[in-house]
Amino acid sequence: MPQKRYLLTPGPTPVPPEVLAAMAEPVTHHRSPDFKDVFTEALARLKQVFRTENDVLVFTASGTGAFESAVVNLLSPGERVLVVSHGEFGTRWQKLATAFGCDVVPLNYEWGEQPRAEDVARVLAESRAKVALLVHSETSTGVVSDIRALVAACNDAGALSVVDAISSLGAVPLETDGWGIDVVVTGSQKALMTPPGLAFAAISERAWARTAQATLPRFYWDWARARTNQEKGSTPFTPATSTVVALNVALRLILADGLESVYARHVALGRACRAGARAMGLELYSPDDDGAAVLTGILTPPGIDAVALRLALRDRYGITIAGGHGDLTGRLFRIGHIGYVDIFDITTALGAVELELVERGATVERGAAVAAALAAYESGT
Amino acid sequence: MPQKRYLLTPGPTPVPPEVLAAMAEPVTHHRSPDFKDVFTEALARLKQVFRTENDVLVFTASGTGAFESAVVNLLSPGERVLVVSHGEFGTRWQKLATAFGCDVVPLNYEWGEQPRAEDVARVLAESRAKVALLVHSETSTGVVSDIRALVAACNDAGALSVVDAISSLGAVPLETDGWGIDVVVTGSQKALMTPPGLAFAAISERAWARTAQATLPRFYWDWARARTNQEKGSTPFTPATSTVVALNVALRLILADGLESVYARHVALGRACRAGARAMGLELYSPDDDGAAVLTGILTPPGIDAVALRLALRDRYGITIAGGHGDLTGRLFRIGHIGYVDIFDITTALGAVELELVERGATVERGAAVAAALAAYESGT
Repeated sequence: MPQKRYLLTPGPTPVPPEVLAAMAEPVTHHRSPDFKDVFTEALARLKQVFRTENDVLVFTASGTGAFESAVVNLLSPGERVLVVSHGEFGTRWQKLATAFGCDVVPLNYEWGEQPRAEDVARVLAESRAKVALLVHSETSTGVVSDIRALVAACNDAGALSVVDAISSLGAVPLETDGWGIDVVVTGSQKALMTPPGLAFAAISERAWARTAQATLPRFYWDWARARTNQEKGSTPFTPATSTVVALNVALRLILADGLESVYARHVALGRACRAGARAMGLELYSPDDDGAAVLTGILTPPGIDAVALRLALRDRYGITIAGGHGDLTGRLFRIGHIGYVDIFDITTALGAVELELVERGATVERGAAVAAALAAYESGT
Repeated sequence: MPQKRYLLTPGPTPVPPEVLAAMAEPVTHHRSPDFKDVFTEALARLKQVFRTENDVLVFTASGTGAFESAVVNLLSPGERVLVVSHGEFGTRWQKLATAFGCDVVPLNYEWGEQPRAEDVARVLAESRAKVALLVHSETSTGVVSDIRALVAACNDAGALSVVDAISSLGAVPLETDGWGIDVVVTGSQKALMTPPGLAFAAISERAWARTAQATLPRFYWDWARARTNQEKGSTPFTPATSTVVALNVALRLILADGLESVYARHVALGRACRAGARAMGLELYSPDDDGAAVLTGILTPPGIDAVALRLALRDRYGITIAGGHGDLTGRLFRIGHIGYVDIFDITTALGAVELELVERGATVERGAAVAAALAAYESGT
């Protein structure tokens, strides 16, 4: 029997069979009515998932590409921009904005910390930056920011907010319009349960107004060109048509479930995963907090190498989870639970972690993790 | 019965069932060995199809994105660049380079003309531009340039050549190394028989050397970052994994067939399509030339609207072909024959064109087009 595969990383995430089947449909031409119908429907569904009336632009790119589009459409060379970092992705956006010659005002926290609205307010006041780049779910640590409060600080200061919601959108609540977020960026391969290859940016009227004065050069990422085409049900350049067709199916599934139900499932899966980790006596690295429902970061007991554990899960059981970084490479592993993940994916991962911990000499009560996870899930749903 | 669909545009092109099936495989993690094996194999196969020992970089993007990567990695603001245009795509690259603040030296031909090496040599000598952007197959007209001669003129002048081979690579001969081309760009959705979503750039050592001095800002398109990752079997940002898996299957099919055989098939299909058009008494717009094997551009008889003809093919028979542009919108239609197209796709398109021409009052010898196409194909293979 071929080894079964379990994908439990915070992206790419597992994709439902209906969505995979859509990937295999014959290719349609991007200017054909067949495609336009699907594209138009997907755009309307995206607005619902983004909780916005704003335009949501579609790029054939990774999430980083759509985030780059925000930088080059909103900023000019030398212009000041606040970039908040509390992990790998905030640091990436600092490097990106620096690469484009922006005057980056960094607001840095230790990895694993929560950014604070009062710091954002203070640094915006001091720096007079008029654009802020923020991370909603910091995938490297599992911290989900209080993005509503951070955005409110931006709005109070008259600064535009650009939010990396790549691993959060569709997993945890995010109200683009309700919270007054100017730009929200995400990708297809996270909670949207679609293969990678598409990325999205929802853009407020205030952000649109700013694009006219932003002088960074742009062509592929040009928002105005994309909007003009999308108004006609099209794209300026050949899009990843098959992935759009698949996305449309995934969005239908998400909306049929209902966003509130989807958010509740992520909370319940996070609780289950944390309960399982605790039952094995493991220390949590990501917050023990219902808001942090994208992934669970767990530390191995001292003396047990997280890299070896992760590779054993992969090679012996076909289970792919994510690793750590920097000083924590040897201790941290991350179990993603966004998108098409159910409680038995969590218990599968926990069961395999238990097997490997015991194998490596850790003292673990056998069966406790799965039992605790199931109990936590049951009480949470 | 649902209406069958026939996709006969010069991109996106039809995709073989094995390749579509690969699109539907469960998603793998882009840092997993499962994916790395496929990616590494696909990179090696790409080099064979590009006929190069150079690095071939993979971008999750449309072809325009990979072409933009060449501009931002090779040029600096205000720098002079020759951009040859003999159709829609050459004009697009002029706009792109202008958007990035380059000093564009245009060398423009009428749409449908062949660019001439002596003109390239003269304009390079006059302008002293050190980079030239060229189009191999001009999809808007069906003209395939004598890119070998154009590149030789660049090399003689000491200018780097960047070639848009988006609709030509894998359809007509192109020798990246043999002809000394510095940068060759293509996309997945043309002769490579894969859905859209990936684009590629093959980069010579001379081009690599130039990137160090090119100061246009870049992050997502940064070649150095991409190369560093590809050397480890990876990509800097989450790639369109499913499309890479599909591409790998398509490249295997192409190489199993053999590039010479693939090129010969395109020549034969082009001959068949032209013979069919002539048998209906139609005037060819694209060159009547074995080198122009990507698509056949055909003019309707005076008084018969090409747009209406094309829409009738689409709506009555499920056949998607491409239209014309500008002054020729009412007369020109284009039948693509790159990638996964066989002679019966061509006779299907010709048969439907015949039906619609007769319906619209044209004098057409019934059955002549299909018979002529089959005869031309038979004698050409």
